[in-house]
Amino acid sequence: MILKLNTSISQAEAAKIAEEIKAFHISYQGSEHLITSSSLKEVPEELKSKVDQNWVFQNDMQLASREFQAKTREIKIGDLTIGGDTNNTILIGGPCSVESLEQIQESAGLIKSLGLTTLRGGCYKPRTSPYSFQGLGLEGLKLLAKMREEHGLSVITEVRDATHVQDVIEHSDIIQIGAKAMYDQGILRACAKIKKPVLLKRGFGTTLQEFVQAAEFILSGGNDQVILCERGIRTFETKTRFTLDLCGVAYLQEHTNLPIILDPSHALGYRYGIEKLAKACVAMGIDGLLIEAHPDPSVAKSDAAQQLSHDQFKALKSAIEPVANSVGYKIV
Amino acid sequence: MILKLNTSISQAEAAKIAEEIKAFHISYQGSEHLITSSSLKEVPEELKSKVDQNWVFQNDMQLASREFQAKTREIKIGDLTIGGDTNNTILIGGPCSVESLEQIQESAGLIKSLGLTTLRGGCYKPRTSPYSFQGLGLEGLKLLAKMREEHGLSVITEVRDATHVQDVIEHSDIIQIGAKAMYDQGILRACAKIKKPVLLKRGFGTTLQEFVQAAEFILSGGNDQVILCERGIRTFETKTRFTLDLCGVAYLQEHTNLPIILDPSHALGYRYGIEKLAKACVAMGIDGLLIEAHPDPSVAKSDAAQQLSHDQFKALKSAIEPVANSVGYKIV
Amino acid sequence: MILKLNTSISQAEAAKIAEEIKAFHISYQGSEHLITSSSLKEVPEELKSKVDQNWVFQNDMQLASREFQAKTREIKIGDLTIGGDTNNTILIGGPCSVESLEQIQESAGLIKSLGLTTLRGGCYKPRTSPYSFQGLGLEGLKLLAKMREEHGLSVITEVRDATHVQDVIEHSDIIQIGAKAMYDQGILRACAKIKKPVLLKRGFGTTLQEFVQAAEFILSGGNDQVILCERGIRTFETKTRFTLDLCGVAYLQEHTNLPIILDPSHALGYRYGIEKLAKACVAMGIDGLLIEAHPDPSVAKSDAAQQLSHDQFKALKSAIEPVANSVGYKIV
Amino acid sequence: MILKLNTSISQAEAAKIAEEIKAFHISYQGSEHLITSSSLKEVPEELKSKVDQNWVFQNDMQLASREFQAKTREIKIGDLTIGGDTNNTILIGGPCSVESLEQIQESAGLIKSLGLTTLRGGCYKPRTSPYSFQGLGLEGLKLLAKMREEHGLSVITEVRDATHVQDVIEHSDIIQIGAKAMYDQGILRACAKIKKPVLLKRGFGTTLQEFVQAAEFILSGGNDQVILCERGIRTFETKTRFTLDLCGVAYLQEHTNLPIILDPSHALGYRYGIEKLAKACVAMGIDGLLIEAHPDPSVAKSDAAQQLSHDQFKALKSAIEPVANSVGYKIV
Repeated sequence: MILKLNTSISQAEAAKIAEEIKAFHISYQGSEHLITSSSLKEVPEELKSKVDQNWVFQNDMQLASREFQAKTREIKIGDLTIGGDTNNTILIGGPCSVESLEQIQESAGLIKSLGLTTLRGGCYKPRTSPYSFQGLGLEGLKLLAKMREEHGLSVITEVRDATHVQDVIEHSDIIQIGAKAMYDQGILRACAKIKKPVLLKRGFGTTLQEFVQAAEFILSGGNDQVILCERGIRTFETKTRFTLDLCGVAYLQEHTNLPIILDPSHALGYRYGIEKLAKACVAMGIDGLLIEAHPDPSVAKSDAAQQLSHDQFKALKSAIEPVANSVGYKIV
Repeated sequence: MILKLNTSISQAEAAKIAEEIKAFHISYQGSEHLITSSSLKEVPEELKSKVDQNWVFQNDMQLASREFQAKTREIKIGDLTIGGDTNNTILIGGPCSVESLEQIQESAGLIKSLGLTTLRGGCYKPRTSPYSFQGLGLEGLKLLAKMREEHGLSVITEVRDATHVQDVIEHSDIIQIGAKAMYDQGILRACAKIKKPVLLKRGFGTTLQEFVQAAEFILSGGNDQVILCERGIRTFETKTRFTLDLCGVAYLQEHTNLPIILDPSHALGYRYGIEKLAKACVAMGIDGLLIEAHPDPSVAKSDAAQQLSHDQFKALKSAIEPVANSVGYKIV
Repeated sequence: MILKLNTSISQAEAAKIAEEIKAFHISYQGSEHLITSSSLKEVPEELKSKVDQNWVFQNDMQLASREFQAKTREIKIGDLTIGGDTNNTILIGGPCSVESLEQIQESAGLIKSLGLTTLRGGCYKPRTSPYSFQGLGLEGLKLLAKMREEHGLSVITEVRDATHVQDVIEHSDIIQIGAKAMYDQGILRACAKIKKPVLLKRGFGTTLQEFVQAAEFILSGGNDQVILCERGIRTFETKTRFTLDLCGVAYLQEHTNLPIILDPSHALGYRYGIEKLAKACVAMGIDGLLIEAHPDPSVAKSDAAQQLSHDQFKALKSAIEPVANSVGYKIV
Repeated sequence: MILKLNTSISQAEAAKIAEEIKAFHISYQGSEHLITSSSLKEVPEELKSKVDQNWVFQNDMQLASREFQAKTREIKIGDLTIGGDTNNTILIGGPCSVESLEQIQESAGLIKSLGLTTLRGGCYKPRTSPYSFQGLGLEGLKLLAKMREEHGLSVITEVRDATHVQDVIEHSDIIQIGAKAMYDQGILRACAKIKKPVLLKRGFGTTLQEFVQAAEFILSGGNDQVILCERGIRTFETKTRFTLDLCGVAYLQEHTNLPIILDPSHALGYRYGIEKLAKACVAMGIDGLLIEAHPDPSVAKSDAAQQLSHDQFKALKSAIEPVANSVGYKIV
């Protein structure tokens, strides 16, 4: 249950109330104090005069719920805003892994040349096998930061585990929590304490309920800049790498107030259908797309089969723009 | 392996060759004779002079493969053609179940008033529980046939099992093989012997390979009018009824020459997101959409939660048209 | 809801009551008449004096429920009984497909030599691809019937679709409804009208609820001789062919009154672990095991990888006997 | 590829070779030096005289493979050994969460009174929702350590994320890596550097290949004390919490040399069938069982529905002993 106190209640008084009811969390926003309780089912008699508004929830979906806030949250990424009433669909591109200065500079050049604003690139790769390329780590983060300085781009990169979450927070404009790290409370709690946008990927074995609950970890800890990212779930089908769950996206759009970015590259796992899937995603009126592209996919150190060439990425952008426009959105 | 004989080979001679190599099937189309063998891996020496062209396949995908025929097959539904180079996306609507003359007349009126051509309605419902409504059976088929006569509409209805497949074949313009009946060889073989379009739904536990193989049953038996229909697969996610597999659709579009119709109603199972999902489907450049609509969903005898009202169906049509146009298709 | 009428109520009077309340089914067993209604939630006032006992159910599990009948049903297979208090675990063996008289005679010899009673063998193979071996059909059924006559064995074979269900009913002692045919109402309804045991396999994409509901089709139609068979469900794991669902078996044992036979051969799909899985199955106190064995697995026309050799089958029997005994059961 | 050097090669020389071939890892065990390379596919000409034996592997299964070491690894837990030729099945019991000194003392008493040796209890609960009980953390670890001192028991507890992995390593005799943390390289790498047994749980959306690869992270880093734990995978079935994958266990027993402990409590999620499932597990000849039990399940702070009462736990032990004996194992 969430209680919104009268604006006449001071911060100190609010803190006292929170303590008395063993509140889960209290959030101070100017004169507006929100108290989240995980045990209360109704407003206690003695608090009724102090509470302006209250929301009771089910299934542990609270702050992310449209019942709590009907409008999609706005998220700022550099000078750009997505969510809210913006009708912006941000197209984020870049390689699976940052591999070298030369490579990431070509990628940054691509993004810049298309009038886009945000570059992706993995530094800590959550590779399942110890015998595969694990990413450049901190060195990669610094290459991304260099791209931000030189090209004025925002950058997004993935945190793999809690041991390097502070490094990623420091160097990245959007913190990406990967599908395999989605339940990691070390990461979730660290991301709850910052004020930067967090892109939370759905685990491939994760239910929609668990997915939203992981977002609640960040929201309830004080960071309201959470973006949900669907990237395909694991099903019995093996001709494609994963199954992009657009029914789930419809559910999330209906029930949560969080912006949604989709990642068709990881879902399909093959270049051939990514443009078509990207069109399908954009037609749903989403807040963004994450697309893998590499200057030369044939030599990529990870996920070679699913990265587009730069020409294919340009073609994809041209192909999705009319679709976005047809549903009242624009690609930014 | 498929062998295309010289056009100089007579039908009688072709039949003799087919017998000699224990062919699986022979298809005579004018002067062009195609022999399908399931055992041959290369053209026997003595036949080389008689064979014009040959195709070797893997994974039991043969006649449905783009390697065999690159272009999407054309299918005629009444006066309308889908597939080929038509860039038509047929919008098929109607109730989950035919319930009464009055109800199906309202449905036919809706379809007609929107300039559409094809009406759906279930007569043999594949309900899992014996204690649920099972459909009107033959009486329903006759109501559909009446709609064809009175309104000039094409009709599509589902065959549930082999006991009534001939009745459906007789009364329906498109034979729908439902998700639960997809492996039924009694039905597949009956549909292989006719020349009417067959809409084959993917089972919710069916791999893409098995799905195409079921289509091969019909194709290899002599009916080349097969449409594939994805309607959602069963995954661990329970907030939605099924998971619409658009990655699978991308795979089918890339590898098979069969037209594809999508059914977002059964996939999601709830009215709220069907319009958005329909937009996503249409953006992929598909051959058709199957949407459930009922004059009064609140009293529907089956699938009440997922049927649109007639106003919602009209709104959906208006909403998907610009999306179809943005990818070069038109809703028909 | 199920109503058990007073034994003083005549059959004619019972039939009239059934008609008045639009009963789903009425079953006459001696002087005991059971009426099943799918709409009633409580006994109507005017019937209270005529009803001895009544059961209200949920989720469409009625006759199969332990609430309706606490004790596991007894099923007779030839001279043998399973279920009830028998603590018998029947071991059924034989090839995936009946291929020839010679082969099936060897199989019958194996079963006989081990003191077992029941031979399996497929005649109508539900092969997904039209280009694979489809079974010997009626000829196979006759070979099985010959084994019954010559060796006094019971035989079990699978019905693939409704077109040959009567042939299978005529020639087989247990009618096996395969995983792909489980929703086929043409088959279910035909099996409801007979008095022979029916082994109903769970579809690989079928929920436990749907599985029990399919059994209800047979039970509610008047045949109370239904055995459930778990044979593996389809999951994301591909190292094994399917995933044997023993959690599901625990659920069925707890909630239904139907005997359970398990099929580890189809679940795993590889010879190597079948003996270990068979031990696991037997340890749960089940009513039977279905194991594929072939005189020479290397030349089997279907499922070659999962069929045991006859020596391996003998070893399996020896290995599971002490396990069965350790839980109070015996292999028969 | 793994190279076993001649025993005449010194440690210094081995290190030089490892550097030259850019080896992934080198392990010194007495005079036996093992070099793991992720790129080599055959022994380089110049090394042939220095290499005694070599193994090439596929699918990134190397040190865990039975090709590398045929015999199941032995693991010491306190004075007890499992794996190898011991035919021991360790029964580990205790509550889902450590809740208080009083509670954990009762649990320790239970374990002790049954002649068992190892107590489980969660301190860092990987709860998906931030609004649920999260565990006692370090305080819980200290309570477990107290039980070790007072009762001479070994203790096992779960690490949730990399932020507290050192605390768990310090206080626990077996480090449990939970299903949600299985991909966490911060944890895997920390566990690779120690010499304590690690129980690695399979993620509920994790393939067998990924599961073994995660074990390779620990093995290849130098800790050869890894136990695999299957605890149920996520499937479409919702009547049970997860689906215990015994086909997967058969695969792991066949292909890997790692001991296997099973967790039927989390798989089923309900008390009623845990004893039967435990019998099934034990019948496969496994190295251990993890069973949740609580002094009073009705007041448990987590997983209340699946924890056994102490009486039920005792009954379970009595029930599984004859099954273990029937396959040549003993419960310890």
